[in-house]
Amino acid sequence: MHMSKKYVYSFSDGDGHDKKLLGGKGANLCEMTQIGINVPPGFVITTEACLDYLQKNELPQELMDAVKAEISELEVLTKKTFGAGPDPLLVSVRSGSAMSMPGMMDTILNLGLNDDTLAGLIEQTGDERFAYDAYRRFIQLFGKVALGIEDEKFDEHFDEVKKRVGVKADVALEAGHLKEISEKFLDVVRHETGKDFPHDVMMQLQLAVEAVFRSWMGKRAVDYRREFHITPDMANGTAVNICTMVFGNMGDDCATGVGFTRNPGTGDNEMFGEYLTNAQGEDVVAGIRTPKPLQQMEDEMPSQFAQLVELRNKLESHYQEVQDYEFTIEKGTLYCLQTRNGKMNATAMVKTSVDMYEEKLISREQALLRIDPELLEQLLHPSLDPGNTIAPIALGLPASPGAAAGKCVFDADLAEKLGRSGEKVILVREETRPEDIHGFFAAEGILTSRGGKTSHAAVVARGMGKPCVAGAEGINVDVDLRLANVGDHIIHEGDIITLDGGTGEVYLGAIATLDAQFSDELKTLLGWADEISHLKVMANADTPDAAKKAHEYGAMGIGLCRTERMFNASDRLPIVIDMILANNEEDRKVALNQLLPIQRADFIELFTVMSPDPVTVRLLDPPMHEFLPTEHQLLDQIKTLRLYRDVVRGRQTALASIASASPLPDAFTELSEEHVNDALLKKERMLQKVRELQETNPMLGHRGVRLGITYPEIYAMQIQAILEAAAECARKGVNAQPEIMVPQVITTQELAHVKRTVDKLKDKLEKATGQALHFRFGTMIETVRACTRARQLATNAEFFSFGTNDLTQAAFSFSREDAENKFLPMYNESGILQDNPFEVLDVQGVGQLIEMAVRNGRQERPDLKIGICGEQGGHPESIRFCHHAGLDYVSCSGPRVPIARLAAATAKLREKDFVGILRPAA
Amino acid sequence: MHMSKKYVYSFSDGDGHDKKLLGGKGANLCEMTQIGINVPPGFVITTEACLDYLQKNELPQELMDAVKAEISELEVLTKKTFGAGPDPLLVSVRSGSAMSMPGMMDTILNLGLNDDTLAGLIEQTGDERFAYDAYRRFIQLFGKVALGIEDEKFDEHFDEVKKRVGVKADVALEAGHLKEISEKFLDVVRHETGKDFPHDVMMQLQLAVEAVFRSWMGKRAVDYRREFHITPDMANGTAVNICTMVFGNMGDDCATGVGFTRNPGTGDNEMFGEYLTNAQGEDVVAGIRTPKPLQQMEDEMPSQFAQLVELRNKLESHYQEVQDYEFTIEKGTLYCLQTRNGKMNATAMVKTSVDMYEEKLISREQALLRIDPELLEQLLHPSLDPGNTIAPIALGLPASPGAAAGKCVFDADLAEKLGRSGEKVILVREETRPEDIHGFFAAEGILTSRGGKTSHAAVVARGMGKPCVAGAEGINVDVDLRLANVGDHIIHEGDIITLDGGTGEVYLGAIATLDAQFSDELKTLLGWADEISHLKVMANADTPDAAKKAHEYGAMGIGLCRTERMFNASDRLPIVIDMILANNEEDRKVALNQLLPIQRADFIELFTVMSPDPVTVRLLDPPMHEFLPTEHQLLDQIKTLRLYRDVVRGRQTALASIASASPLPDAFTELSEEHVNDALLKKERMLQKVRELQETNPMLGHRGVRLGITYPEIYAMQIQAILEAAAECARKGVNAQPEIMVPQVITTQELAHVKRTVDKLKDKLEKATGQALHFRFGTMIETVRACTRARQLATNAEFFSFGTNDLTQAAFSFSREDAENKFLPMYNESGILQDNPFEVLDVQGVGQLIEMAVRNGRQERPDLKIGICGEQGGHPESIRFCHHAGLDYVSCSGPRVPIARLAAATAKLREKDFVGILRPAA
Repeated sequence: MHMSKKYVYSFSDGDGHDKKLLGGKGANLCEMTQIGINVPPGFVITTEACLDYLQKNELPQELMDAVKAEISELEVLTKKTFGAGPDPLLVSVRSGSAMSMPGMMDTILNLGLNDDTLAGLIEQTGDERFAYDAYRRFIQLFGKVALGIEDEKFDEHFDEVKKRVGVKADVALEAGHLKEISEKFLDVVRHETGKDFPHDVMMQLQLAVEAVFRSWMGKRAVDYRREFHITPDMANGTAVNICTMVFGNMGDDCATGVGFTRNPGTGDNEMFGEYLTNAQGEDVVAGIRTPKPLQQMEDEMPSQFAQLVELRNKLESHYQEVQDYEFTIEKGTLYCLQTRNGKMNATAMVKTSVDMYEEKLISREQALLRIDPELLEQLLHPSLDPGNTIAPIALGLPASPGAAAGKCVFDADLAEKLGRSGEKVILVREETRPEDIHGFFAAEGILTSRGGKTSHAAVVARGMGKPCVAGAEGINVDVDLRLANVGDHIIHEGDIITLDGGTGEVYLGAIATLDAQFSDELKTLLGWADEISHLKVMANADTPDAAKKAHEYGAMGIGLCRTERMFNASDRLPIVIDMILANNEEDRKVALNQLLPIQRADFIELFTVMSPDPVTVRLLDPPMHEFLPTEHQLLDQIKTLRLYRDVVRGRQTALASIASASPLPDAFTELSEEHVNDALLKKERMLQKVRELQETNPMLGHRGVRLGITYPEIYAMQIQAILEAAAECARKGVNAQPEIMVPQVITTQELAHVKRTVDKLKDKLEKATGQALHFRFGTMIETVRACTRARQLATNAEFFSFGTNDLTQAAFSFSREDAENKFLPMYNESGILQDNPFEVLDVQGVGQLIEMAVRNGRQERPDLKIGICGEQGGHPESIRFCHHAGLDYVSCSGPRVPIARLAAATAKLREKDFVGILRPAA
Repeated sequence: MHMSKKYVYSFSDGDGHDKKLLGGKGANLCEMTQIGINVPPGFVITTEACLDYLQKNELPQELMDAVKAEISELEVLTKKTFGAGPDPLLVSVRSGSAMSMPGMMDTILNLGLNDDTLAGLIEQTGDERFAYDAYRRFIQLFGKVALGIEDEKFDEHFDEVKKRVGVKADVALEAGHLKEISEKFLDVVRHETGKDFPHDVMMQLQLAVEAVFRSWMGKRAVDYRREFHITPDMANGTAVNICTMVFGNMGDDCATGVGFTRNPGTGDNEMFGEYLTNAQGEDVVAGIRTPKPLQQMEDEMPSQFAQLVELRNKLESHYQEVQDYEFTIEKGTLYCLQTRNGKMNATAMVKTSVDMYEEKLISREQALLRIDPELLEQLLHPSLDPGNTIAPIALGLPASPGAAAGKCVFDADLAEKLGRSGEKVILVREETRPEDIHGFFAAEGILTSRGGKTSHAAVVARGMGKPCVAGAEGINVDVDLRLANVGDHIIHEGDIITLDGGTGEVYLGAIATLDAQFSDELKTLLGWADEISHLKVMANADTPDAAKKAHEYGAMGIGLCRTERMFNASDRLPIVIDMILANNEEDRKVALNQLLPIQRADFIELFTVMSPDPVTVRLLDPPMHEFLPTEHQLLDQIKTLRLYRDVVRGRQTALASIASASPLPDAFTELSEEHVNDALLKKERMLQKVRELQETNPMLGHRGVRLGITYPEIYAMQIQAILEAAAECARKGVNAQPEIMVPQVITTQELAHVKRTVDKLKDKLEKATGQALHFRFGTMIETVRACTRARQLATNAEFFSFGTNDLTQAAFSFSREDAENKFLPMYNESGILQDNPFEVLDVQGVGQLIEMAVRNGRQERPDLKIGICGEQGGHPESIRFCHHAGLDYVSCSGPRVPIARLAAATAKLREKDFVGILRPAA
């Protein structure tokens, strides 16, 4: 059954909230008209008309009837005549869909001009040049947009006239030239289309409307929608806005300009914008004349300025949002031509949120909801001085945001040495490994020439909140020669470079950086967020220093402390290596006994820093071989040591060859043959162990609790350190909240096995100290089997923490590293996967597993505490999922904490809009 | 509330079906008594009494009362007196739980002897030696079992007497010596326990019962139950059987023997067993006198033989199962002392099943259910001659069953060459790689010194049904020297060796092997199975030859044809390598065009062999680098080629060095410098590509459909080959049933992407040939995400096939290879995991994922065909799960097909017993 639809709404008639039907622009024009803002009269053709047109490939019959009626209405309102002098009605025809797609579709101005109305326009304005200029612009724009004639066909005639006349700028042409050009343009249309330019203005209008409709399916628009994930439920079809033309270039009582209702750079509550007198809209943008700040209008056109102030106040109080508006003053009268929400930087967004709340313009909820949590990223890291004019020398992946400058250093030891002496250094490596960790601590930023956003460098830098550019492939690092080259540039060790981890750019030389801006307004805003959120926001932090920083970011505890990061510090790694090399439990225990007091001291500090918030300590997770050098590195070291031994033995014949070998470590230059032999033996043992430990798929190997069960003394040491630290805190009156977390669990027996160790050590310690120990015991849920066995696991676990990186890998059966380097970009581009599931939680796959585990776990233990740690824990969309899945907390890297806090509040406030599945099906 | 339990049942009273209460032995003694078989009178103390004793650590009060009453009853029945002459009642005390635990618990004979009854026994038998021998045996056994005295304490006295007397064998001792020994034994008891040997026979009995009860928790019994997964629901506590002693050694009208109701070696329906006249039970086993076949009794003791025949018939017709029984003839009267189901080899099991059905003794269902499907393994592979006396020289993992002998060969090329010339060869490698595949085809068996049951060698050999011993670590293979050494043995290439892939043993020299026995009876039995089963059984087969073999095993189609195996044949690999080395689509297509006709021909043959059964072809799955040599191998080859180039250039100085390098490939010896350079270039390109393709976790990398989408021309070629083969078959009137299967799918878009290629090629081909093509399109379900997205996948997939190897890996987050080499054995031993989940489907984890996918998939498409391929598809317990999960088929390696067929029928027949979860919770 066909129901006649209403295809056309006058501005005084359309529903300003129905952006889907009227488009954003059209809805705002209606809204403004209806709240008494002076908008030139006009009307909107709906997006439904567009869809019907695209389906049938012709305009619905009733549409043009309705348009004609609206034009008659305009004629009455404006006292002008459409298609006839002496005061012809001219209109603009603009597209406008529900989502802003800037520049993606076409606009036609001055529609309604033909030979007859042109004469009227000349008569009315007394300005022949103005009229012919409008005419020739209209013919070309209409020819291009509605008739499909290429710009070049017009441009060649235009250029020919300019050449003949001998001028370069369009403005230098006189009325006669423009008249000649207009005539030639009419010839072009005749020649290209085989028909005369349509003099029937209603036909002009019809063709223009059809052209706008068609542009919705044009390549530019389709590409744009794909690029920005605009789906039909967000915007379907474009509306057409037909609006009476007003002119800011009809004399000195005319002007045109653009404005923001507040300063979009600072958020300050002040007039902000520019205008030009006697000019048209495009002159403001074109930059031929220098526009004046709006403030100047107060002197120049005081009455119009008053109108403008009124407009600004009306817009803000009505929209409860900073507006970005356009206006024209025609013969003393101010018209508002457009308004939309203003795009601002993070500083301005935060300040205006707090200000508008204090001005009672908006509620706290609105203040939070108007800010995209991701935007805060800008505020949380140092940034490059925007005034910088130096060009980058290389581009890598933006692996960890923030900007940093410092001396380029090619190894971690030197980075540590220089860093300790107060130098600012940037660690530059082909790729980094766990044993470089002390270099990370010392460096301002990290640059690697290999590896993706998930490489060791990227992950560790993000965790520390330090800038990192990874995989800058143009850079070749030669550690032996202590230099790197990038194209023609050679960077010597000690040269200063600057990184922008937010863009991936690398600069030679120092560029000034601006500090992070954790402003009072931001603190206020996040305080409101915390009050509203259901989810708590924890941080991933591995050291007391990182924990302190996380606290500053507002973390409500540590959700993931990776003890292996503690193992990597340079004073500990040798002990850890001894432990790994041990061939029996006894030798292993000797090493572990050395580690025990170190770990305990770390934990005491960590618990104290975070007190009374919880600290979740994950027991050792990575496979053993990650603590050892690579086979390749060891072979090199052994080769060098053998040469050195030969030298020490006095074999002078070997001297020649050693000269060409890599420099010897300082430590060996003064040693005896015996010492060298010892070192050599140790390296050879390491090599043997490295080969023994080799795994085909290190992500699927001997790690996590599997390690903890095969070498029970390791976990026993760690558990003892945690419990003793807790006891020591209690003794000092510090309220410590440790949580012991077991990684990689797949069976209930594994967890029960570790639990027995915990219980035993707890009983022993409680007996020894006479103190009751308070802590939680729980498990990572990072294997699929743990999700299916969640109910049984919850018998022993008091908390679950989803390790979404590993869980994602398991669900997809591809590793982040291998996927990002190979096929993932292509998968994202072709839409086979919407997102990188290692950045944005995959709701359909991994999300189902999480929901299963939550359901099963809580069935056994209703008060089970559940959270998520992993990169996705800091991603707003993933946080929204976590909120709806009933989690208690998310844990992310320190610098993401403020983003997560805002996102957690947003998730709570948007609860009602949630429809279960957040992304289109993949 | 305490209810008085009945702790004791006389043989004429106990319920023969209640093995849980009475133990297996006790229940059978009751049963036999009650069906009129002559069992010496006795009674059973229940397993409940055992559990109560173990809990309270003392015998329930009412128990000994009941025992006394039963003893009185025995005295009446036997007209003997317990604990007094002249005709003393002696009894045996034997343990017996619900599950047979042979030798795991203790037995006491001749209980009831003391100084008084001994005199009676002497008087009654007139045989002092017999009596003292019985006495000293009783004292020692009782001393050990009931009083905990070590055997050595008795043995030293026994040995001392023998030494003094100057005899070696116990039988050479005379009555006087045995009397002396008995007295010394009584002294031992007094000395060790501080008390006299109990002369109160009721006390003897009580202590004996307690000892049997305690033995249930003894180390031996506990270990045995753990080893054989005997859980409390299967057997809880032991019963005690107290039975009147009868003696086969009281004269020539006495005898003792053991029998099977049918021949357990052949299954023939004949008297089978051995006996000795005037002997006791242990003499038959001890081997001092040679027992006579039962048949001989017909002449020697005709009336007793008649009793025996009657016994045998009664047992079989009652138990409807072959019985293994023990008997004693005391003074002309036959007593049956024990019966149980006979353990037989596979041949006998199959034959007796078919025979007993034909004799109308059992139903077809019983005929099927009485055979453990795994037992058939014995019948399906050649086996070593059991008469062999040669000792193995090495032991590896039993990686693929069957026995094979042949010349030892150290590389695949030579194996192929010799194989073609008709030689039998065994391929011996450190480990194998895909490019060795032609060597597998040529070899009788495969032996490797590295790798586990999941190594390439093991998996491929199992797939081909060839014997394989993997990871025989004692063997060091030196390919360059063309020899291997094992301890002191050196095996030169060409030496003959024999493998037993069922045991992992390796022998030097040829040992005769017996062929597989796919007997008529087996065929009959499996025919019955197929009629009953719901599940169809398919085979995994990659070549027409393998498909033919699978057909012989009764496969109802090919459930998995891995096309990459086709790529590895030596005439194809070079083309595949060209394809991989291609740097653009065009070059890649050149290589693919060469592969197209080869694949098409393969498919035509495969479809024809299996017609009209389906053949499921999996599109290319492994990562590209699997087709290339390793980096290490290439470096070696390049080094050799460079040396060779130097030689060709006439640099005689290099000759010395080349002598020490590895021998040059034949192909190069006659080539020019230009040719060598070309070869070198190619190798260098391969090396570059290998490095490019390197992956951190190959199992989680660029493979399966991810490869098919990034290089769409590869899948297009394979799909075209399949469809063209189908068209060609149709043209020839062959009913081909191809199924196209996409591996590693994670999103609906991936499957839709491949589907579009299939549809396009199908349309094109149908237009070109004018023929309608019939085939199915479906997907492997081998990623967790595919399980969560099954409903959406089913919109495009007409069938699912679970790839349980990959799914298991994904659920557990460990790879088979890394797990089996590192922690899995320890996990199995300590009970953290019950089984190796790569062999036995993990019902709790992987099973849940399968159930989820089945449910979701069928929701979308109720007639979705669903199966499983992967190692577990041939495992009876996993098949049972598949049956209950509603799958349509399982697919396994060819030689496992008969096992799977029987298991599928068994699963159907045991439907009612299914309780949802098959294994204890892990």
